[in-house]
Amino acid sequence: MITLSSDFGTPYPAAMKGVLLQHSDARLVDVAHDFPRQDVRTTAFWLREVLPYFPPAIHLVVVDPGVGTDRAAIVVRAGDHAFVGPDNGVLLPVARELGDPEIFEIEYESTDSATFHGRDVFAPAAGRIHEIGVDSLENLPGTAPADEFHDLQFPEPTVSESKAAGEILVVDDFGNAITNVPGDFLDDVNEIEVDGAPSSVEPSYAHVEVGQRLVTVGSHGNVELAVNRGRGNEAFGITVGDEIRLER
Amino acid sequence: MITLSSDFGTPYPAAMKGVLLQHSDARLVDVAHDFPRQDVRTTAFWLREVLPYFPPAIHLVVVDPGVGTDRAAIVVRAGDHAFVGPDNGVLLPVARELGDPEIFEIEYESTDSATFHGRDVFAPAAGRIHEIGVDSLENLPGTAPADEFHDLQFPEPTVSESKAAGEILVVDDFGNAITNVPGDFLDDVNEIEVDGAPSSVEPSYAHVEVGQRLVTVGSHGNVELAVNRGRGNEAFGITVGDEIRLER
Amino acid sequence: MITLSSDFGTPYPAAMKGVLLQHSDARLVDVAHDFPRQDVRTTAFWLREVLPYFPPAIHLVVVDPGVGTDRAAIVVRAGDHAFVGPDNGVLLPVARELGDPEIFEIEYESTDSATFHGRDVFAPAAGRIHEIGVDSLENLPGTAPADEFHDLQFPEPTVSESKAAGEILVVDDFGNAITNVPGDFLDDVNEIEVDGAPSSVEPSYAHVEVGQRLVTVGSHGNVELAVNRGRGNEAFGITVGDEIRLER
Repeated sequence: MITLSSDFGTPYPAAMKGVLLQHSDARLVDVAHDFPRQDVRTTAFWLREVLPYFPPAIHLVVVDPGVGTDRAAIVVRAGDHAFVGPDNGVLLPVARELGDPEIFEIEYESTDSATFHGRDVFAPAAGRIHEIGVDSLENLPGTAPADEFHDLQFPEPTVSESKAAGEILVVDDFGNAITNVPGDFLDDVNEIEVDGAPSSVEPSYAHVEVGQRLVTVGSHGNVELAVNRGRGNEAFGITVGDEIRLER
Repeated sequence: MITLSSDFGTPYPAAMKGVLLQHSDARLVDVAHDFPRQDVRTTAFWLREVLPYFPPAIHLVVVDPGVGTDRAAIVVRAGDHAFVGPDNGVLLPVARELGDPEIFEIEYESTDSATFHGRDVFAPAAGRIHEIGVDSLENLPGTAPADEFHDLQFPEPTVSESKAAGEILVVDDFGNAITNVPGDFLDDVNEIEVDGAPSSVEPSYAHVEVGQRLVTVGSHGNVELAVNRGRGNEAFGITVGDEIRLER
Repeated sequence: MITLSSDFGTPYPAAMKGVLLQHSDARLVDVAHDFPRQDVRTTAFWLREVLPYFPPAIHLVVVDPGVGTDRAAIVVRAGDHAFVGPDNGVLLPVARELGDPEIFEIEYESTDSATFHGRDVFAPAAGRIHEIGVDSLENLPGTAPADEFHDLQFPEPTVSESKAAGEILVVDDFGNAITNVPGDFLDDVNEIEVDGAPSSVEPSYAHVEVGQRLVTVGSHGNVELAVNRGRGNEAFGITVGDEIRLER
């Protein structure tokens, strides 16, 4: 199985699929191709939330603001999974979630297309790894343990018994504003203050009236600011990267 | 085969796919993940139009404004098909199209995630039904005939020989405004009045000049208000839920 | 393998998939369903760029402003590939890329639905061709060599050693403006004039500062006008169909 993630929109992902199908008869599963353009951190967040639900797979990830520069192409192995993509940190958070990451660098010809490594470098690599098997990927010609690589860490919140200071990591398609504060901060309370304003703590969206705001634990396990059938980011006046202060 | 329908956008549907692939090696087919948010009626309309073209399958449907409340999780069996989703009526119109629906309730733990039942309740159920088979789904632990359930009926038009009073059910991506008036109301006429204004009746869009409006029978069999290479909803000044009067 | 391309948005493509799966157990691969509405030339460009990366396949293409008129339904065979769609030229550029095209006309009932030939005419034809095999498609009942057909040619640029006059063929989802001027016009220069303004020639986007414009050879092999992490079409003030003059 090979999953595909990118910020390519359409129809560029189809070219990657064609290349993959030239190399392998793997099942292909699209994760998303509308990740925010060249936004490595947001993509890394979503991969960490979504890919651990998959059975062992090769994950092809191309959000690659440095395409065509001398940034390396890497494979990260973690558990029974392998992640293939550019060396910009995007693969590391999900890999840590799934095991103890080993990072390999993939050689590629500098004469390959400089603007579409998804098609010309990463898809062929993913196809070859699928054929040889994740366990054996170090046997692929041109693959060697990486001496160095770019990492990416999400910002850590500061949490005490009564206060938490965190950050909005992403806003999802529904408008739910997802913080980096662990959901257990909401244990056993019915109300908290969000940046000083009292807000109801609920098990899910429809526990308040339509259009009302609420605080809940989202499907990722973090504190999430939401509106029943509305957009939490707008109601709370917040966006990605904003600091958020919670008090219980 | 398992089809997937939701209002999730991306990348949440990928988490459901991961879970399904943990439970089964079924072929997965996306129907749409951009159904209008929490709009049960529009989704029900599209499912009824599209899913009957599929061979026997499990259809996972998650448009679920009541997620996390005490609304039930159900499976509807009709013919060789099964539909899995929330008990809000969305599954019934398509099920009636495909057979005589039997409705079952699926038990789930209230400790499951309260905000993402697509991933945590419905996808595992769909995977298990795929493995056990639609014929045997009542043998799944925690599955029992439902005592009651929510139904959903589309509004019925009033049609006489010369007049029809109906409603705009949906506007499709092209801007075609789809009514609930059966297409045979247009039989053997070249012109009708739409809310009092004469409009040309045509076999298809390109039978009028580019930008001109027309009335036709859409691919769903209903009367549709359209514009050749344009948007019928704008030209006719109508939107979903509007009443419409036709006279021939 | 059957690929699907259309301007349908959602959920109409799912109806085509259902029909295909009634006729065959082929692997289905989506190319794109958001091609610009009824824009035959842009679709033809993208098909030519993307489909040659696929192994032998049946390619179902439905961008069809003439649906329901007397325009023919055709199959084009080129190499080991077959292309199924309306006779409006959209299939020819990619077919020429893959071989020496043979064009066949497919008979269909005029009583078939007049507004959704993707579902009612082209998908069944693609499914049947998949089952009988591309080599044998002329044996399908109702299939005969076409006496005439619509072709589509992209405009040719005028290129001398120092000057090129071309056209913007498409703008991709990133905002890269793709011309019809072959990339080798940029060989061995570091700067060219674009409509009189000097512009840097780079191997890829990130070779200039974020927000800066550049000229490069895109993944399609043509000259492309771009901005690092921005939109080339806006920075250069150009759109599809505009003439462009390059001087080196």
